[in-house]
Amino acid sequence: MTTYTPPLKDFHFILHDVLKVQDSDIPGYDELEPDFTSAVLEESGKLCRDVLHPLNHIGDVEGCRLENGVVRTPTGFKEAFDQLREGGWPTLDCDPEYGGQGMPYILSAAVGEMQVSANMGLNMYAGLTHGAYSTIHAYGTEEQKNTFLPKMVTAEWTATMNLTEPHSGTDLGLLRTKAVPQDDGTYAITGTKIFISSGDHDMAENIIHLVLAKIPGGPDGVKGISLFIVPKFIVNEDGSLGNHNNVVCSKLEEKMGIHGSSTCVMNYDGSTGYLLGEEHKGLRAMFTMMNEARISVGLQGVAMAAVAYENAAAYAKERLQGRDVTGPKNPEGPADPIIVHPDVRRALMDQKSFVEGGRAFILYGGTLIDRAARAHDADAEGLISLLTPVIKGFLTDKGFDSTVKAQQLYGGHGYIEETGASQFVRDARIPMIYEGANGVQALDLVGRKLAADGGKHVMAFFDIVKSFIKENEGNAELKRDFLDPLKAGSKDLQAAAMYFMQEGMKNPHAALAGSSDFMHLFGHVCLGLMWAQMAKASMEALENGASDTAFYENKLATGRYYMARQLPETALCLARIQSGAEPVMSLAAEAF
Amino acid sequence: MTTYTPPLKDFHFILHDVLKVQDSDIPGYDELEPDFTSAVLEESGKLCRDVLHPLNHIGDVEGCRLENGVVRTPTGFKEAFDQLREGGWPTLDCDPEYGGQGMPYILSAAVGEMQVSANMGLNMYAGLTHGAYSTIHAYGTEEQKNTFLPKMVTAEWTATMNLTEPHSGTDLGLLRTKAVPQDDGTYAITGTKIFISSGDHDMAENIIHLVLAKIPGGPDGVKGISLFIVPKFIVNEDGSLGNHNNVVCSKLEEKMGIHGSSTCVMNYDGSTGYLLGEEHKGLRAMFTMMNEARISVGLQGVAMAAVAYENAAAYAKERLQGRDVTGPKNPEGPADPIIVHPDVRRALMDQKSFVEGGRAFILYGGTLIDRAARAHDADAEGLISLLTPVIKGFLTDKGFDSTVKAQQLYGGHGYIEETGASQFVRDARIPMIYEGANGVQALDLVGRKLAADGGKHVMAFFDIVKSFIKENEGNAELKRDFLDPLKAGSKDLQAAAMYFMQEGMKNPHAALAGSSDFMHLFGHVCLGLMWAQMAKASMEALENGASDTAFYENKLATGRYYMARQLPETALCLARIQSGAEPVMSLAAEAF
Repeated sequence: MTTYTPPLKDFHFILHDVLKVQDSDIPGYDELEPDFTSAVLEESGKLCRDVLHPLNHIGDVEGCRLENGVVRTPTGFKEAFDQLREGGWPTLDCDPEYGGQGMPYILSAAVGEMQVSANMGLNMYAGLTHGAYSTIHAYGTEEQKNTFLPKMVTAEWTATMNLTEPHSGTDLGLLRTKAVPQDDGTYAITGTKIFISSGDHDMAENIIHLVLAKIPGGPDGVKGISLFIVPKFIVNEDGSLGNHNNVVCSKLEEKMGIHGSSTCVMNYDGSTGYLLGEEHKGLRAMFTMMNEARISVGLQGVAMAAVAYENAAAYAKERLQGRDVTGPKNPEGPADPIIVHPDVRRALMDQKSFVEGGRAFILYGGTLIDRAARAHDADAEGLISLLTPVIKGFLTDKGFDSTVKAQQLYGGHGYIEETGASQFVRDARIPMIYEGANGVQALDLVGRKLAADGGKHVMAFFDIVKSFIKENEGNAELKRDFLDPLKAGSKDLQAAAMYFMQEGMKNPHAALAGSSDFMHLFGHVCLGLMWAQMAKASMEALENGASDTAFYENKLATGRYYMARQLPETALCLARIQSGAEPVMSLAAEAF
Repeated sequence: MTTYTPPLKDFHFILHDVLKVQDSDIPGYDELEPDFTSAVLEESGKLCRDVLHPLNHIGDVEGCRLENGVVRTPTGFKEAFDQLREGGWPTLDCDPEYGGQGMPYILSAAVGEMQVSANMGLNMYAGLTHGAYSTIHAYGTEEQKNTFLPKMVTAEWTATMNLTEPHSGTDLGLLRTKAVPQDDGTYAITGTKIFISSGDHDMAENIIHLVLAKIPGGPDGVKGISLFIVPKFIVNEDGSLGNHNNVVCSKLEEKMGIHGSSTCVMNYDGSTGYLLGEEHKGLRAMFTMMNEARISVGLQGVAMAAVAYENAAAYAKERLQGRDVTGPKNPEGPADPIIVHPDVRRALMDQKSFVEGGRAFILYGGTLIDRAARAHDADAEGLISLLTPVIKGFLTDKGFDSTVKAQQLYGGHGYIEETGASQFVRDARIPMIYEGANGVQALDLVGRKLAADGGKHVMAFFDIVKSFIKENEGNAELKRDFLDPLKAGSKDLQAAAMYFMQEGMKNPHAALAGSSDFMHLFGHVCLGLMWAQMAKASMEALENGASDTAFYENKLATGRYYMARQLPETALCLARIQSGAEPVMSLAAEAF
């Protein structure tokens, strides 16, 4: 069976050596002293390791069941969810006014990584609740906030987001769910929503559905979409639960993975809904939820890669097979551990350098989110908005690849479900798809985010890279191993952006044909930047006589691997982008 | 649900326009006239489409069950297998002396692709039987051949290959199964083998196990391994079936995919075995089987990508979502089909250009196998031996990627098992692992095949590429779009081979650290060569006034895509290779 070990040391390094959160001017970061973050993360890590992870395989094997209209979660999930609640983990970064602890987002991102690594299926229930919390917090009336938020903050009530319908996925303009105004100011919601995570389950007293629907007579397409709060049970004025609201899960989907998470077809039949935000402005409100969700999904890519890597590395050190080509390393044993083989190392280094770079990228993104929200910094807001599709798309594509590489190291044993490597692959597959499939992220990046505010945010990103290089190029070792490769990658990214500017105007297909490559190119440069920053921090720590020299030296070696063997993919991405629309678009649709 | 359409036109093109098998001097190829191959492939295709494919999803959902020591296959498998037998399909390329039809291998490769695309799980039963047939045919005594081959040729009896033990996978020297000589010249086989495909099932009267075991007192390691024939039921002298031979399936593995194929733990308990070939020379004999199996596995990569692509393309033409950025293409409808979006095209072109290039590569490999076997051509033998790890490793890595891209196009629907796209991904995962995991293929390629016979075969490959370029560079269009990119890719391959020669001697880790990249680099150049040849054939057909101009023009466009957007990966592979051992090997094992 699999194990999970919280990466506490790595969190400490990124938070305090690299991002230096304790010295940041972001409001609230003054609390993030090393002792405090260590205590929080250690406590959370214990729960993840000892309670959540042992249920991960059980969740996969048992899955959820629909019994008499009620969804039953796998054995042990309810008790584990209770422990999460009792520990106050769902409240971590929520508003103290509604019972939250008011911690910065960055801390909950680190906790989130551990919870996903430990048990992604179980984590879905609380994860989406947080997104709905943020949306109601931003757009709800005082009454709505007072009614729903306190119980959502503690996850006594969980929540869902209801966008997709059978014929309407990415294209929300096509949705048909109706919201008919009632005399009492509520709306009667009728329609069918699919792929609703946590749509029903047995772990919470109430489930708060946020539902996109159209008010009859409103504008066509996305301009006629409104957002509604539709609780499973009506909440009485005194806060007690009243009638069942005609919201039922009519089917549970059989999925490739995350079997522990219930994925429901939800039927609304004249269900009572409360308008959230303004009429016909539902999409804007839902985007609050989606942007947050997209970063959480990017985090899932890293988290799944992390736990898959941990187990594959352990296996590679244990499994005896063959001999090191330069001579036995375990001469007393029947064979050497497979970690002696260079190709096994290569696969492990691919994973390790991605996981550690991706983790840093997520936490760096966390500082931007906190700066935007807590310091009302429009530049940080613009930059994280630009980076969101990169975080979501790149980290989940590479995260999935990483789990596949982990599985490969087990040979035939990796294909057997008992081993657990297959579950990591199957679970890691969905982050590439939901919350906007990665092709849609690439479209969002190239078609919208890149040119937003006159291209100001991408220019700001280039400036960050350029400044970092300039400030540190006096360090010859850093320059050779990290800054020069970063400069080359960044140059490829600039060339790609330039190509889009020049060609994209004339022929939008030329830009969009390279959109996924651009997202990957961008992602590599971001991870290259993270590795350069981590290398600098490691060199400083070594110079300052840090006691754990091995940790910092390993960091440098892992970073060198990324720069030498992963970052050069930027040139391939650029070559593809510059080949333009012609190769991609020249066949007639009938030719496929 | 999914569909399967046999790629008859593409087979015709590759066999007759590109490889021109009808004009070949390979003995037996004179039979391969277009009318004949079309009739055979059409007939096989019908069975695959109408009988095998409709059982594919059933096989996945039901899987196999172990009931009272007997494995039950999914509903309909037995009847379908009977139809395969009645059609004589398993006999296609077998020796007429034992009831085979004596057709060239290339024809059975085409049939094999269709059978795998249609139902990979079901195809496993006959596939491995063929490998065992070849081994007994090559190494068996007259009596063994007469006893076992006639029933194996018709697949009335199926067969297995038993290599792996719990502690002994790639490293066969560690195996513990014992073969104790008996007074009657037989051996008593005792031990446990794992991951035995078709180890037991209910579709054949008898199952012939080929088992690797050690005769006590023999040499240590792989030099002490012998190969044995161990039938499930003893075959009496009159050919009737006698006693059960104490071979039992003690467990069925739960796997990520190919649920229709039974994967067994097999226990041998003093079971009667007949030595196949010489004592202690078992590995050599088993390699006959493994080389054949490796090419069949490479074919599985292409076959799974083909059926996944077919279904994804159909979905992309049907699913309405969003609008073409340059203006509606389906203005009457609520939205455009998603195939209008450049990133969707990009994903489809990736798949299409891989499938068609990979198919050509397999069939080209088929000509080498036939030339080696039928014309006793040592050069052909050497070349296919060199290319075998490329066919197995590259085509299955890329084949899996291709199924993932197919699944991605469905959005959330792709993650739901009902859709069928997930099964293609899960099934396509195993070819990367079995018959020597792809890392082992890369090791075989770089560590053994590349330098075999003084590097003669890789030089021969370079000559083939060079000659083709030289002979055709007068064609300016071919040169620009195909020959120049091929030349660049081939130059990268030569540079990589040169690097291994220079560095590999001093530091074997430097060569092996780049082994997987080299396998991919080699694979891309092979597919580039195939596309250049297909482009030439298409141009000739168009010049000669072929009626179906669209087919040939689409071929050219698809090839241009491969050359412009896939082949350039060679430069990335080379950069990684040339970064050497240092980035890969610098961490201590404890650092992982």
